[in-house]
Amino acid sequence: MMRLSKILTFLIVSCCGIVTAANAQGLNWTEVAPGVWKTVVGNPDEYDLLKAAGVAPKVEALAKIGQAAFPLPESDIAGQVQGGKTALRFPLERGEQIYGFGLNFQSVHQRGKILRLHVDHYGGEDNGRTHAPVPFYVSSNGYGVFVNAARYIDVYAGAAARIDSENPPEARDRNTDENWTSRPYSDAVEMLVPAAGVEVYVFAGPTPLDAIRRYNLFNGGGPLPPRWGLGFTQRVHKLYTAEQTIAEAKAFEEKGYPLDFIGLEPGWQSKAYPCTFEWDKGRFADPEKFVQELKGMGVKVNLWTNPYVAPEASIYDEILPYTASHTVWVGAVPDLTMPKAQDIFWSAFEENHVDIGVSGYKIDEVDGYDRYLWPDVATFPSGVSAEQMRQTYGLLVQKQSTRLFRERNTRTYGLVRASNGGGTSFPYVIYNDYYKHEDFITALVNSGFAGVLWTPEARASKTGEEWLRRMQSVVFSPMAMINAWSSGTKPWSFPEVAEEVKAMAILRMQMMPYWYSAFAKYHFEGTPPFRAMNLEEGFTQDQSAATLADSQVNLETNPYAEAVRREVKDQYMAGEYLLVAPMFTGQTSRKVILPQGRWYDFYTGEFVGGGEVITVTPGLEKIPVYVKDGGIIPMMAPMLHAPKAGEKVAMEIRHYGEKPGTYRLYDDDGETFDYEKGEYTWREVVVERRSNGKLRGSISKAERGMPNTFGKVSWNFMTN
Amino acid sequence: MMRLSKILTFLIVSCCGIVTAANAQGLNWTEVAPGVWKTVVGNPDEYDLLKAAGVAPKVEALAKIGQAAFPLPESDIAGQVQGGKTALRFPLERGEQIYGFGLNFQSVHQRGKILRLHVDHYGGEDNGRTHAPVPFYVSSNGYGVFVNAARYIDVYAGAAARIDSENPPEARDRNTDENWTSRPYSDAVEMLVPAAGVEVYVFAGPTPLDAIRRYNLFNGGGPLPPRWGLGFTQRVHKLYTAEQTIAEAKAFEEKGYPLDFIGLEPGWQSKAYPCTFEWDKGRFADPEKFVQELKGMGVKVNLWTNPYVAPEASIYDEILPYTASHTVWVGAVPDLTMPKAQDIFWSAFEENHVDIGVSGYKIDEVDGYDRYLWPDVATFPSGVSAEQMRQTYGLLVQKQSTRLFRERNTRTYGLVRASNGGGTSFPYVIYNDYYKHEDFITALVNSGFAGVLWTPEARASKTGEEWLRRMQSVVFSPMAMINAWSSGTKPWSFPEVAEEVKAMAILRMQMMPYWYSAFAKYHFEGTPPFRAMNLEEGFTQDQSAATLADSQVNLETNPYAEAVRREVKDQYMAGEYLLVAPMFTGQTSRKVILPQGRWYDFYTGEFVGGGEVITVTPGLEKIPVYVKDGGIIPMMAPMLHAPKAGEKVAMEIRHYGEKPGTYRLYDDDGETFDYEKGEYTWREVVVERRSNGKLRGSISKAERGMPNTFGKVSWNFMTN
Repeated sequence: MMRLSKILTFLIVSCCGIVTAANAQGLNWTEVAPGVWKTVVGNPDEYDLLKAAGVAPKVEALAKIGQAAFPLPESDIAGQVQGGKTALRFPLERGEQIYGFGLNFQSVHQRGKILRLHVDHYGGEDNGRTHAPVPFYVSSNGYGVFVNAARYIDVYAGAAARIDSENPPEARDRNTDENWTSRPYSDAVEMLVPAAGVEVYVFAGPTPLDAIRRYNLFNGGGPLPPRWGLGFTQRVHKLYTAEQTIAEAKAFEEKGYPLDFIGLEPGWQSKAYPCTFEWDKGRFADPEKFVQELKGMGVKVNLWTNPYVAPEASIYDEILPYTASHTVWVGAVPDLTMPKAQDIFWSAFEENHVDIGVSGYKIDEVDGYDRYLWPDVATFPSGVSAEQMRQTYGLLVQKQSTRLFRERNTRTYGLVRASNGGGTSFPYVIYNDYYKHEDFITALVNSGFAGVLWTPEARASKTGEEWLRRMQSVVFSPMAMINAWSSGTKPWSFPEVAEEVKAMAILRMQMMPYWYSAFAKYHFEGTPPFRAMNLEEGFTQDQSAATLADSQVNLETNPYAEAVRREVKDQYMAGEYLLVAPMFTGQTSRKVILPQGRWYDFYTGEFVGGGEVITVTPGLEKIPVYVKDGGIIPMMAPMLHAPKAGEKVAMEIRHYGEKPGTYRLYDDDGETFDYEKGEYTWREVVVERRSNGKLRGSISKAERGMPNTFGKVSWNFMTN
Repeated sequence: MMRLSKILTFLIVSCCGIVTAANAQGLNWTEVAPGVWKTVVGNPDEYDLLKAAGVAPKVEALAKIGQAAFPLPESDIAGQVQGGKTALRFPLERGEQIYGFGLNFQSVHQRGKILRLHVDHYGGEDNGRTHAPVPFYVSSNGYGVFVNAARYIDVYAGAAARIDSENPPEARDRNTDENWTSRPYSDAVEMLVPAAGVEVYVFAGPTPLDAIRRYNLFNGGGPLPPRWGLGFTQRVHKLYTAEQTIAEAKAFEEKGYPLDFIGLEPGWQSKAYPCTFEWDKGRFADPEKFVQELKGMGVKVNLWTNPYVAPEASIYDEILPYTASHTVWVGAVPDLTMPKAQDIFWSAFEENHVDIGVSGYKIDEVDGYDRYLWPDVATFPSGVSAEQMRQTYGLLVQKQSTRLFRERNTRTYGLVRASNGGGTSFPYVIYNDYYKHEDFITALVNSGFAGVLWTPEARASKTGEEWLRRMQSVVFSPMAMINAWSSGTKPWSFPEVAEEVKAMAILRMQMMPYWYSAFAKYHFEGTPPFRAMNLEEGFTQDQSAATLADSQVNLETNPYAEAVRREVKDQYMAGEYLLVAPMFTGQTSRKVILPQGRWYDFYTGEFVGGGEVITVTPGLEKIPVYVKDGGIIPMMAPMLHAPKAGEKVAMEIRHYGEKPGTYRLYDDDGETFDYEKGEYTWREVVVERRSNGKLRGSISKAERGMPNTFGKVSWNFMTN
């Protein structure tokens, strides 16, 4: 009987989720990669974010960031299973700020927030419901924390006060004390994961950016898009025919607007919402000919879809046993965790699209709304819960569709409406229907904390001014897209700004070497190409802001210190050297916070300031962009399409400011995965000051036998 | 080994929450009271809504409604445990509408909604977060469903479509079909309860109102307030002293405004937010004298509090071991499920308040916001989870505070900001800070579906018009309250409407016999005193609306049918006979939907219509109120304070319309619980038409030895 009772005890403890406080003390942290630690609390789910993503860490690249000590006091971290859920606690210091928790649209500082991380279309409030509610946060103290659960996680990001806290808030009398607050001080991030256990990861710095880089590299590094993915893209009206689409591409060419890929909306399918994934023979009589004809014009085809299978789809009967208990608009929901479902589902995509040359997808409606998607009561044949599926469906479609292209040694670059932790490496950009320009920029700021890409797409505008302002932002983003499926807007639709829009689109193309290298650094080194000011070294390098007493910090006595203490959500860093400060409709001037150091106007090379807040009045035709002292920006000759593999282009290398500078320029064939076999080069660009005081630039030769895109190089020292 | 494996199987099935589809078929329904059935799915939580409320069903009253068959096809109901949660499904027919799911503020029709029932301050959207997110719904087909779980329940109220449904929605092509909808037809209410089992109750009709009555009686029937609770109440500024409060009461008396109880706000306590529950000796030097002095003026005292214990409270050290892991504004959160915590906590209330004559409480902040209350990661010493505590804290404070008064054989009537299923019988009215007049009326409409009371309180107003319009609504509600703690507004603050406000306040007092009888019917028979038009017999009695084809129903061809198909949320039934149609600021006229039958103006007795939509222009001084044909409204002489036990008042009995009528007038001592021992009378009022065509009224004598409040009776046949 002893033996029996032992077995019973084991069973109760290990399977029932009633292990109260089993792990309350002594979490064991194991370093699983350089500067990356993991712990396990309770009995985690079989299925989680990292399993859904299924990506290998870039261990060598992590090692290059360097070894580091565990960045937090271990004894201040707690994890325990209570009532079948897992409670986690991480300490916060006074003055510490935290960033992240996914693709937020209105806030950058997350300390004080209460969130419920839930994949959904963004609903206008930073409450955790967003397209990529990544359970990862970064501290201004230089570390990151990731919770690997495909669950709706409740987050109290410095918003809960324990009765036994060693740093309790002060008790105040609301009757008479003006300093009473409804949100007292909290010294911890607490989370509740609705599962009887969870894996947690901690990422070392030393800087916040290093912690992000480690997170990204641990998840395979950022995606390296094909070069054409960084060109210009337009999406056409949902009922366009093959002929209308080709005419549209021709119009771009004739009018001199760049176009690298064109997106078809639902009407390319014979039925949509739910989908057949098959071409509508009325609008597209010969899809292969259509795709090839566009290809001949230098324009790739991207296809909209959602993953819900229409009863009329040819795969419907076959996939039915591998679909959910509930439908989405009567469409079957494939259980994409099941190999059989994957085979049936993606075979339709291979046969109908990829094999005839389609370049990628826009995968819609994998995020929300609740009233669209399967309910949380739904079941899936694999046993993965509706909640887990909701949290990971975006990851699954990204991973699995990427595989179709990888198998053909062709890169893809597409759009998706949901992602999550673990999804860093997928070549997809998130978009949505929210369309508030200011908040789109804040999303761009936050994307860099979340290991995702985001496009502030232009759809339609009420005025030429708005159209131009939106296009200016689009050009300084991961995907330069007009998403005109509904409005039918063309880049030239507002004649009064058509030339200015064209100039911006061409600037985007000229800057392709800079963007491409920025993405290579995302891929190989983990540095997000678009990111918050808070990650910029000079932004808070001088800790004057943090160390000044409250009374010393105000806009009059110390405007810069005050500015960086506040949430900065309307300007961002793009690539290594650029600071972008978009203008919004109705603005003629704006304030720009220039970090410590010296900054120069991108267009003129003129010195504009440093460690200060400036007010700029750039005119309608310009988006304010500034370059760090010593900044090097490689640009190419203006072209309407990205260089193809093997094509050579002339190059202008710009230098800004007074400091010498160095830059690493990335090159490969721009189209295949051969870079994974080492077929790429980093070319060293150096700008030095000669003994005569003049600047001189040099660039290392391309390695023999390696791709070499760049022909003649001219130098442009922008600051005299 | 056979025996061991059997035990293991049992353990896995019974304790692990992995019992997939264990109860998918064949739920067993047990009739637990007349017309009330219960089933158990899986292994329900130990702690639930009904355990928190702890109220005995009124079985005899239920029996009077009558026996009934189980009102749904049993085979269409499903319940199963999946992934540790419980999924429930109930069928919906075409054309069926559902109501309820708690205190919603903007909608009455709940079919199509997705809700997450979560106790919270109302956030401006009917998404399940509200003060009383009662998991109970009523069908237009005449039955009710209640889920007895103290959990955040996900509700898909006809918003999810199963792939194996026998009534599936039609598949449509969004590309070309204009009838495509993002919300396809759903034939079921589905719910997901985050617990490995749950108790579910079904209530028979035959009418929707009968189902509600059964629900209310099963939960002990509605509360019977003291008579004074139905009088007028004012809440004074938070820092008022004893002297200022007494002066305020005197001002009411002098100016001729009724006042039955006066509410003190946080400043009566020595510290608040968190609270000491002790009098501030500066503002209230002699609390007992203060309370007794007001009592001598006919005015009772109500005390604001929240339940969070300040470190300065004398009970702090003693209660600390019985409080939560987390604080609310640094206050300890008593685990009110624990007898020891209850003893310590409520002893402070008895000693400091109830024993010196305080009449009741306004219990604040037991609802939300998330940023105020304990986080969901908090633990409580009883082991009840933070979620369960959040869902039931409003029930606990109502139940336990009521007990203090019951032990002294004195009724109370107070305010609370949270309730839930099971809370029908508690003498508390819900209020909040949302303050949108239109939505306050919709809450009044919905309160009748949820077994709760709601006050559309007046706080402040921008104009005299708004003040008067709000006061008019307040008078036709469960609690006639001015909540002026912040604004300091008095009933007479707008001189231009001061007389009209006074007239309304006096009307409230005159109607006390009608209100008191309506509450008695709530208590003894389960009929909500304030309720939706949808529960009124004549509203959809003629099923023309439901049976007309869509094309026949529009505002031109059949305006009444069209009106009752729509959501009616700005008019309601009050007591047996009154239809109230409030006016909102800026309106000079409004539409009123008069159910089938004949309806008469409350003020003049004139016929206004029936089975039609009328437009009325009542003038500023009147709130539109209509009386059903044969309606009898007992009124008393105008008084500034409710009659005390034993006091006799003159009475006017009004009759409206042409039909004879009957009415049951309730009477008891108005103050104690002696009615529970049978010390009450129902007096029969009959209006007959004599042979000469004239109406004649009669009232049965009060039973000997029973309370008898009514003296001289005069008759008023309003319609000639």
